[in-house]
Amino acid sequence: MGILIKNVTVVPMNSKDEVLEDTNIYIEGDRIISIGELKENFKIDKTIDGKNKVAMPGLINAHTHIGMSLLRNYADDLPLHEWLNDKIWPIEAKLTGDDVYWGSLLSMVEMIQSGTTAFCDMYFFMDQVGKGIEEAGIRGVLTRGIIEEKGQEIEKLDDTRRLYKSWHGNANGRIKVMVAPHAPYTCSPKYLEDIMDLAYELNTGIHIHLSETKKEVEDSFKTYGKSPIKHVYDLGLFKLPTIAAHCVHVDEEDIKILKDNNVSPVNNPSSNLKLASGFAPVDQMLKSGINVCLGTDGSSSNNNLNMFEEIHLASIVNKAVNMDAVSVPAITALEMATINGAKALLWDEEIGSIEVGKKADIILIDMYKSHLYPRHNIISALAYSVQGSDVDTVIVDGNIIMENREIKTLDVEKIIFNAEKVAKDLVNR
Amino acid sequence: MGILIKNVTVVPMNSKDEVLEDTNIYIEGDRIISIGELKENFKIDKTIDGKNKVAMPGLINAHTHIGMSLLRNYADDLPLHEWLNDKIWPIEAKLTGDDVYWGSLLSMVEMIQSGTTAFCDMYFFMDQVGKGIEEAGIRGVLTRGIIEEKGQEIEKLDDTRRLYKSWHGNANGRIKVMVAPHAPYTCSPKYLEDIMDLAYELNTGIHIHLSETKKEVEDSFKTYGKSPIKHVYDLGLFKLPTIAAHCVHVDEEDIKILKDNNVSPVNNPSSNLKLASGFAPVDQMLKSGINVCLGTDGSSSNNNLNMFEEIHLASIVNKAVNMDAVSVPAITALEMATINGAKALLWDEEIGSIEVGKKADIILIDMYKSHLYPRHNIISALAYSVQGSDVDTVIVDGNIIMENREIKTLDVEKIIFNAEKVAKDLVNR
Repeated sequence: MGILIKNVTVVPMNSKDEVLEDTNIYIEGDRIISIGELKENFKIDKTIDGKNKVAMPGLINAHTHIGMSLLRNYADDLPLHEWLNDKIWPIEAKLTGDDVYWGSLLSMVEMIQSGTTAFCDMYFFMDQVGKGIEEAGIRGVLTRGIIEEKGQEIEKLDDTRRLYKSWHGNANGRIKVMVAPHAPYTCSPKYLEDIMDLAYELNTGIHIHLSETKKEVEDSFKTYGKSPIKHVYDLGLFKLPTIAAHCVHVDEEDIKILKDNNVSPVNNPSSNLKLASGFAPVDQMLKSGINVCLGTDGSSSNNNLNMFEEIHLASIVNKAVNMDAVSVPAITALEMATINGAKALLWDEEIGSIEVGKKADIILIDMYKSHLYPRHNIISALAYSVQGSDVDTVIVDGNIIMENREIKTLDVEKIIFNAEKVAKDLVNR
Repeated sequence: MGILIKNVTVVPMNSKDEVLEDTNIYIEGDRIISIGELKENFKIDKTIDGKNKVAMPGLINAHTHIGMSLLRNYADDLPLHEWLNDKIWPIEAKLTGDDVYWGSLLSMVEMIQSGTTAFCDMYFFMDQVGKGIEEAGIRGVLTRGIIEEKGQEIEKLDDTRRLYKSWHGNANGRIKVMVAPHAPYTCSPKYLEDIMDLAYELNTGIHIHLSETKKEVEDSFKTYGKSPIKHVYDLGLFKLPTIAAHCVHVDEEDIKILKDNNVSPVNNPSSNLKLASGFAPVDQMLKSGINVCLGTDGSSSNNNLNMFEEIHLASIVNKAVNMDAVSVPAITALEMATINGAKALLWDEEIGSIEVGKKADIILIDMYKSHLYPRHNIISALAYSVQGSDVDTVIVDGNIIMENREIKTLDVEKIIFNAEKVAKDLVNR
């Protein structure tokens, strides 16, 4: 199918601050074929009027647990460990595959509606998430969170191996599978080594939680005499491409390790604030040349999956932390949510920017809104003023999956009904 | 006119955490007549279906500069003093009454669309803002910001006196006028005394910026040997009811003064973060019993007027600052944006909660959204998940000014056109 987006403002995110006014994007099949003038050889099946719209790369949510939408607004205003141990883990133990299916689809609806086109998910019943990705037309990395449990060590590794064989590369390449040790405090060093062996066997990357809370770091020093980052580095984990969620409590040695090993930390501002985990040194990591990207975490610690909110926060929170209003400027926050996310997900040759030859993962923002006038600076508007609800049209892999805010691929009413139903069942189970 | 909102969930905000499921609100004229069962003597002209909707008090933006929407996204990623001195003040010097009229109307559209029904504005050409309030049907406090300028001292006081006589109590009481010395660093002690005399003469309150930046506090100690708060307290300012915007850099003595004098500090989280001003000790002030309320500041330092974003931030940012996930829980953040704001604006006998006998300033949130399921906790949903764009219907003073997101009182297209036009003219002037 050939799609022409006509007379649109493009923020390609492939070089600093570039804004292309009143131009055209031509898509054929799953790829961007042309940006600029109209050409005679375009085979146009569908034309989208880009007037008063901005095209930018689809947002990439580099760390989330999408099945957790079922627990949105279920347990709030609690400290992380109490929240996890007393509320989240007990109820998660009761989750079924069917629950995770409906929760994941609910999250995919929310992500599409707020401009996210790719995500990296860590959860369980991941086949259900794969099935959801196929149906929704979105792009995602499946990672089955592995917490060490006596007697289930091998079974959990086998589950990831099976998941990889079932799903990696599926849906026209929209699905990847990586290996996800939950955290160094839930996996022993020996088990982490087995997990690393599996990642080498599958030739894929790692997705892990690292240094989220002060307590986690203190415990690591007590147990291993070093920080969680130094600990997993010494085990060799960072020889594999690694997505490291959080990295809130990191010191200079940690930052050097992250940099030297091309680790991609994922900043989750809403979650880190809401759970009182603290402030990640985002500006310092970025200035060290680290590929810091952006995530929402699960919607039970956020409590939404709105990446525009995270872009806004990544920029403004870090300015206050550093007492420097120049920290994490608008363009940098947008990079965190697009091209940096693509790099972390080992997908930057295909997505993360609007460039000829790349996959067509594009969102159109409706700029005809009271809060988006006047038009002094489009980059600032995207980082500071745009709301998730301003996303008008979403294209993934060359397919229009939302147009004029109507999702084309999913039965939204049915998903909301079933998600509400299984969530209520779950609480009373 | 009699309006019945039927089968609605009500969050009245008049006592902790109360949620009334599936009830009815009856409005006659400008007042709330009944909450609960339907009665035979209701004279219903208009029925609103409240199914899947939450009714809560309209939000109160207790500190803003609405004419500044013209400068949205005009100057970003700069420190406060550079932003003010090099960018904002030079361009503001060129503003005309016509500019401020269109900028203010643009802001009123944005505020209505995101659920704000009352605001406290500090700017100039305030007659234009009064005119806008009359047209929009919104509620507001006009305060003409007074910066001491040689030769204009008396003229500026006279302008406020004239403003009070022209507007105070107008529009069925939807307009109030207060007196606004800009800040202790822009008004000398002598001039502050003259301004206080004027407030006594008019029998009205004060709106002032206090202790926004570290530099301001340091300069105050250099000049007066005390903090800005102690300085104006010693001058007697707090004998008048005072709305104190920011109060970011306050110490224990300041907090005691604010408490003992019933001063209402306005927390402006987005602005304080974006301008790198710092983190106000909101939790500590609230726990001292201080009436902390919430504002957006101007949309050139935010860059929007979305109070739901500020509610979200007030709660989550303060959790991280205090390393305590229980700080500023959901209900408290909602109170800051409703009843506390009403108290600050000396309006809590009329607005700030949904109660029989109060003015009908009510917003309806459309809860049929992917990001508002499941429905575990309505209070959490309002504080953490709801977006400004979820506001469906806005009632002020018993009049429906927005229904199904359509503003009834203003020509939105014309306002956007003119605001964009005058903003472009302004930059090139």
